[in-house]
Amino acid sequence: MKEDSSVSGTAPSATTARLLIRCADRPGIVAAVSSFLHAHGANITALDQHSTDPEGGTFFMRLEFQTPHLDVGRATLERSFGEVVGARFDMDWRLSYAAEKQKMAIFVSRYDHALLEVLWRWSRGDLPAELTMVVGNHPDLRSAVEGFGVPFHHVAFTKETQESAELRLVELLDGQADVLVLARYMQILSPGFVARFPMRIVNIHHSFLPAFVGADPYKRAYERGVKLIGATAHYVTEHLDEGPIIEQDVLRVSHRHSEAELKALGRDIERHVLARALRWHLEDRVLVHGNKTIVFA
Amino acid sequence: MKEDSSVSGTAPSATTARLLIRCADRPGIVAAVSSFLHAHGANITALDQHSTDPEGGTFFMRLEFQTPHLDVGRATLERSFGEVVGARFDMDWRLSYAAEKQKMAIFVSRYDHALLEVLWRWSRGDLPAELTMVVGNHPDLRSAVEGFGVPFHHVAFTKETQESAELRLVELLDGQADVLVLARYMQILSPGFVARFPMRIVNIHHSFLPAFVGADPYKRAYERGVKLIGATAHYVTEHLDEGPIIEQDVLRVSHRHSEAELKALGRDIERHVLARALRWHLEDRVLVHGNKTIVFA
Amino acid sequence: MKEDSSVSGTAPSATTARLLIRCADRPGIVAAVSSFLHAHGANITALDQHSTDPEGGTFFMRLEFQTPHLDVGRATLERSFGEVVGARFDMDWRLSYAAEKQKMAIFVSRYDHALLEVLWRWSRGDLPAELTMVVGNHPDLRSAVEGFGVPFHHVAFTKETQESAELRLVELLDGQADVLVLARYMQILSPGFVARFPMRIVNIHHSFLPAFVGADPYKRAYERGVKLIGATAHYVTEHLDEGPIIEQDVLRVSHRHSEAELKALGRDIERHVLARALRWHLEDRVLVHGNKTIVFA
Amino acid sequence: MKEDSSVSGTAPSATTARLLIRCADRPGIVAAVSSFLHAHGANITALDQHSTDPEGGTFFMRLEFQTPHLDVGRATLERSFGEVVGARFDMDWRLSYAAEKQKMAIFVSRYDHALLEVLWRWSRGDLPAELTMVVGNHPDLRSAVEGFGVPFHHVAFTKETQESAELRLVELLDGQADVLVLARYMQILSPGFVARFPMRIVNIHHSFLPAFVGADPYKRAYERGVKLIGATAHYVTEHLDEGPIIEQDVLRVSHRHSEAELKALGRDIERHVLARALRWHLEDRVLVHGNKTIVFA
Repeated sequence: MKEDSSVSGTAPSATTARLLIRCADRPGIVAAVSSFLHAHGANITALDQHSTDPEGGTFFMRLEFQTPHLDVGRATLERSFGEVVGARFDMDWRLSYAAEKQKMAIFVSRYDHALLEVLWRWSRGDLPAELTMVVGNHPDLRSAVEGFGVPFHHVAFTKETQESAELRLVELLDGQADVLVLARYMQILSPGFVARFPMRIVNIHHSFLPAFVGADPYKRAYERGVKLIGATAHYVTEHLDEGPIIEQDVLRVSHRHSEAELKALGRDIERHVLARALRWHLEDRVLVHGNKTIVFA
Repeated sequence: MKEDSSVSGTAPSATTARLLIRCADRPGIVAAVSSFLHAHGANITALDQHSTDPEGGTFFMRLEFQTPHLDVGRATLERSFGEVVGARFDMDWRLSYAAEKQKMAIFVSRYDHALLEVLWRWSRGDLPAELTMVVGNHPDLRSAVEGFGVPFHHVAFTKETQESAELRLVELLDGQADVLVLARYMQILSPGFVARFPMRIVNIHHSFLPAFVGADPYKRAYERGVKLIGATAHYVTEHLDEGPIIEQDVLRVSHRHSEAELKALGRDIERHVLARALRWHLEDRVLVHGNKTIVFA
Repeated sequence: MKEDSSVSGTAPSATTARLLIRCADRPGIVAAVSSFLHAHGANITALDQHSTDPEGGTFFMRLEFQTPHLDVGRATLERSFGEVVGARFDMDWRLSYAAEKQKMAIFVSRYDHALLEVLWRWSRGDLPAELTMVVGNHPDLRSAVEGFGVPFHHVAFTKETQESAELRLVELLDGQADVLVLARYMQILSPGFVARFPMRIVNIHHSFLPAFVGADPYKRAYERGVKLIGATAHYVTEHLDEGPIIEQDVLRVSHRHSEAELKALGRDIERHVLARALRWHLEDRVLVHGNKTIVFA
Repeated sequence: MKEDSSVSGTAPSATTARLLIRCADRPGIVAAVSSFLHAHGANITALDQHSTDPEGGTFFMRLEFQTPHLDVGRATLERSFGEVVGARFDMDWRLSYAAEKQKMAIFVSRYDHALLEVLWRWSRGDLPAELTMVVGNHPDLRSAVEGFGVPFHHVAFTKETQESAELRLVELLDGQADVLVLARYMQILSPGFVARFPMRIVNIHHSFLPAFVGADPYKRAYERGVKLIGATAHYVTEHLDEGPIIEQDVLRVSHRHSEAELKALGRDIERHVLARALRWHLEDRVLVHGNKTIVFA
């Protein structure tokens, strides 16, 4: 039991860049992309690809490469990639840089477990984001949040005040949220609001979707007598609980557990499923295809 | 890596009896039951109990006891228990004896994985039952079944012939099936047929119920993009896929798996979930309460 | 997504008592115990038993009962049980009352993950204990602990100062620790110290014991190339990492994970395994038999 | 519950080829390999890579590509790849073709569970191999094996007869075994024998290695009181139970399980761990690095 004061996991270094690609599958993509990067001095350190079907399917790729020996600047690299490779394969593509952290905002209600897990992991560097704010529709969690040195805003939200509340939220988030986390936020956001953050709102639902879509999943799990309870992290779309699933997990329960115990046990799965999904999102590991995700974990 | 030719698990001995009880919960039940058994020379070797609510709930108990030192015969013991204890607490109760194996019949279609798992475990003594027959609505699996020394009956079954087919099935099963196993039987039995075997038909459904009730669960799991697939063993009631759940399990999948691969992977979960549920049923470990089960595993 | 402000699990009520029993197995124990309790107005609400062997084995039992309708006071009940039942079966037994929480002290070094998980669960009432202090052999975690309103003591501890350090610890713990939690405490306590807290020191070891006993388990797991990493909560005895195991769990890893990532992933298992083991200990669910535990979870 | 008679998973097509590469990591490998293949008309349909360290580490890659549009024959492709790419990066590499199944032999003693799982999966096409023979050191399983249409050979094997027995085995296996499966074979093969099949003997060990190396792991797991039991598939080297681990899994157990029950439960993990490891080996998904494996599953 020797002591060791270095507790962090391996983070990508400040020189890591990521290239994300989506296009129609056809021969030659890997060769073109990797040759382009190599020719410009990029050293590929991770590469994942997926094709929904080699014949007529969609091709997805995520590359990590190191930038120290690039022969051109970022702007030139990006423009050139678009002209030389992107155009040739009619790609959707983007480059991101690990050193430029995404801005993250969190919405919360009264439950604190999912929020605290995210704050805790973020504070130890496990979630590579710039946490700009937490917004609660109740004021209860202000001091917990401010204890982490993070701004807390209280924006009351009811069906009656939804319109003005969402306006206030939009104002607060303006330029401050590349990703928005619903950490057991108990309000339903309007389609108009959701449309401002396409595939950038991550929700944690307290069931193994598509079982128990909607309200009170633990109550319904209890009543149905299931032997496993679960949680699902997914992107929010205008269709409640139906967006692309990022991650899910389950836990064994039995007839001995009351509904309240299912809720208590479920908190642990919710915490971990949300944390994993969020890390993958922040590391650009999640690509969306229709209503499904490709996760290069 | 020493050799060891004794491969079997621990089976209950030939002198094991089981007492199963359900009644309104109130003080004194355990004392009354255990004192009665002790007074008659029964040695209690396992005891599980569950109360849905100590105030006004339902009480369930399963005891295993050894019979060699009983001071009375079985018939006397049963009559006396009913008069002395059962009547006092207004119990539903029954006694079973490990030496008297339940008669089991299996219905199957063309998929053989669930069937073979049951046959295999049964043949090595892991499933304490007298296997009376396998009935297929296709003739395909006859030789696989007969290879285990078990009679196979082909009873064609279509929507048009359902009535006559079920008459034939009733005839075959007459006195031959304490429990009926649907090992991926792809036909829906009529409510009238199901009513003949209340809480005695065990089905394996190829999803994590209540997700993907009904047809083609793997196809729908694939389309929804779930990250776990599952299987559910449940008692069959007149409501399709809605009977009391006995056991469930799941397996992690990813975007890399095609629908066909989900099916292939799912077979392994189906096999194990069915085998576990069936063993628990045969050992009288499953008690039904409303549409839920209490499993004293 | 209706709001619900009741977040706690089901706790045993203030009127819950627990009876823990160990004795040589022989017929009549359940009847004697349950009859005694019933005769005195105790309502048994949970009962678990285990026999290592019905012939000549050891018998263990845990009962929960409700005290409102007892016909005698606690002292009388305890004395009477000892005289009437305990003596007859030569039992080791004890009664505990949920309302009288155990005093708990935590030892910690620099890693905060296990500590924070315990503090967090304790602060929300999930761990029924009176948390009297946290002792660190480094001062680093003082403010984190004090933020929870819990006293923090810094007691430096090196091989050279072990004797005086342990004297100081004994002083601090005097009357303040029914249970002592080593939340990744990186020092080895002397057999003399350990002997003061028999089966009352809970340690979290960062491997799936007995694999990787001793120092640097993640390093050795990485070098061995295991496909699962684990954590083990166990009682501390004078034999390092060899005390009775309370709980274990594992997590899947692959060749993609560096040693640092194994450590980071392992933190999550450590947190949960320790939390589960601790709750079971505090609810009197763990009985020790030789170097093994019986956990009535 | 629509009927579906197509039960098989997705197999790689007859035109699938696989390229496996190991070399010192340095920039440009992916570009060189993918460009070469693309230039010759190969369509890459899967690509996995791993670097133990981008600076000075070892690089591993597995590609699947489709051969119908190759502009040269296999021999030319292989020679050319070696000259153009392999030599440049000083690669260990090999090409395999899904249509050319590996020859597989199985060694077994008296336990049949691992053997039957392999036979069963092989018979339904889940394990892409040509199964040439099963060799038992006891005659017991002859009929079970021959029932699958597979030749069975009885070669008695004791410490005294080891030398002649291994000579007989070598004779039988000559040209008949690209991979050798020890399906709970209870004899220890000599280093000389093992050296004939480097990283081509797959053993299933009945514990979560490195816990319980050697004999009687279930007995020792029972005595240690572990809360999980496991199984490990690994390549056999001259060091008993210490070869590279391919796959592991565990199952939860409790104080309620006897040693015999641990064995019975463990059989299920052994079956599945061996089956998964074997499929990965047969699909060329397992690369060895020192005493560890890289599994591109």
